[in-house]
Amino acid sequence: MSLSAQISWVAVDWGTSHLRVWLMDSANTVLAGRQSTDGMSRLATNEYGDALYRLVPELDGRKQIPVICCGMVGSRQGWAEAPYAQAPCKPLGIDAATCLQDGALNVRILPGVKQMSPPDVMRGEETQIAGFLEAHSGFDGVICLPGTHSKWVHISAGEIVSFRTFMTGEMFDLLGRQSVLRHSIAEDGWDVNAFESALSDALSRPGDIAARLFSLRAAQLVGDQSPQTARAKLSGLLVGIELAAARPYWLGQPIAIIGADALAQIYADALVAQGGAVTRVSGLDITLQGLCAAYSQIKENTE
Amino acid sequence: MSLSAQISWVAVDWGTSHLRVWLMDSANTVLAGRQSTDGMSRLATNEYGDALYRLVPELDGRKQIPVICCGMVGSRQGWAEAPYAQAPCKPLGIDAATCLQDGALNVRILPGVKQMSPPDVMRGEETQIAGFLEAHSGFDGVICLPGTHSKWVHISAGEIVSFRTFMTGEMFDLLGRQSVLRHSIAEDGWDVNAFESALSDALSRPGDIAARLFSLRAAQLVGDQSPQTARAKLSGLLVGIELAAARPYWLGQPIAIIGADALAQIYADALVAQGGAVTRVSGLDITLQGLCAAYSQIKENTE
Repeated sequence: MSLSAQISWVAVDWGTSHLRVWLMDSANTVLAGRQSTDGMSRLATNEYGDALYRLVPELDGRKQIPVICCGMVGSRQGWAEAPYAQAPCKPLGIDAATCLQDGALNVRILPGVKQMSPPDVMRGEETQIAGFLEAHSGFDGVICLPGTHSKWVHISAGEIVSFRTFMTGEMFDLLGRQSVLRHSIAEDGWDVNAFESALSDALSRPGDIAARLFSLRAAQLVGDQSPQTARAKLSGLLVGIELAAARPYWLGQPIAIIGADALAQIYADALVAQGGAVTRVSGLDITLQGLCAAYSQIKENTE
Repeated sequence: MSLSAQISWVAVDWGTSHLRVWLMDSANTVLAGRQSTDGMSRLATNEYGDALYRLVPELDGRKQIPVICCGMVGSRQGWAEAPYAQAPCKPLGIDAATCLQDGALNVRILPGVKQMSPPDVMRGEETQIAGFLEAHSGFDGVICLPGTHSKWVHISAGEIVSFRTFMTGEMFDLLGRQSVLRHSIAEDGWDVNAFESALSDALSRPGDIAARLFSLRAAQLVGDQSPQTARAKLSGLLVGIELAAARPYWLGQPIAIIGADALAQIYADALVAQGGAVTRVSGLDITLQGLCAAYSQIKENTE
């Protein structure tokens, strides 16, 4: 049987800068996984279908294939707006998904989650959380999703109780690459001791952050601080103030960190050093698990 | 007598993005003031003389005109490097100025000031400080210079005792114009109440800054916060964490704010609200006063 004929449905993680798809058979086995850089920021509303066909030409000629999407694809500037569910709520609502028909594609876009006070939003992370809860249904604690915009999410009784977003990754990029600090900060390289020391300083005195940043530049001008040390220190300071402000979330709670990369390891190490009880889970797999859970709900609804 | 013949010396404030000159007679009267955007960031080392002649064509044909410069023109990437004086020190050392001859121009570049611990540097502000101290020779307290990189400077017995730089203005620009917050933040407009409330929050709990920034975006998505309110809040948060971290400088000290613009007014209002004893002085005049003080030193040295 051709790959095209085997495809039962398509799982799609569609963010601002990436498009990831998994071609799935009826038993939820992955037939193929693919990705491109056709993220939301590059696409006009009427270009999403074409972008998907480009990445999965096997869809050509197939009819009424379910396509289940999560992420920024559901924002106002995306393919179609999928209004937010409001926390506290369960993380996944296929019944609340936005449906659209694009050629032969039968598309459902999962809703994000919003919080009124303090104001916050997520799109995509709720699907990772749903995937995590599929495998850890009794989990009661806090989920940390490190990244460009890190999220801390309090989970209880299968619901997103509350959450908070931190712009740590974006701040690191802006300060390290576009501010005056860029002259003193390397594009890569690391200094473990500098990171740990900066993290510890920022965790114990986060209110001093405003005074510490320019020193990363000055320490090279008046001393001999290396650009790799400066890079690790900037990361330590920013992760430190995030962990300090997120303390009400993680203190005394089981912590699940979603993410398998070096960044997730940094968070795990820092939290363990603070006495945290940390579990780590791969982020990509977990998004797929969340999309599979949504597909199962559709099948239940229609069977 | 032609303007050209009247010029005794030229005062120059040469920063990263601006070039300001004053044409001076022998009695330190300003004959003319001019400015251009030929800042350091636009010029190669061998282009500074030409940039000055472009702005002051009257210098053509004149010989051995003293030109006294302050600012980033003295950095390693500038016209010629003027090595830093080391705090604690007096803010101005014409004897330590870097001299260079460029055609008929007899150029002196005033040194900046560095601090070894915590590492910090200034270039240009030391000349403003010198100008301020000319008019307030007995000042003992803290000078605040708000801007892209705000400086707080502890002055005692005519010396820069210590100082600290805050990247507040640059952070405001990066976050407001280049981060995800830009979608929710206006280019101008203001909301006094939002500013004061954010400032007060950040001053009392500066360690929460990491949790507060993304809310500026989310409050528009889940509510109806205006882009002008978001702009004022971002400013309030950033000025608030600066004032919190600078508290050891200003608490219980006479405070002189150098700057005549809306930004200086924001700092003044915030500090007065905290019980600070604030004086304000125009920044541009004071740079010229500092350059005049340097010129007087040269005359004393040569007479």
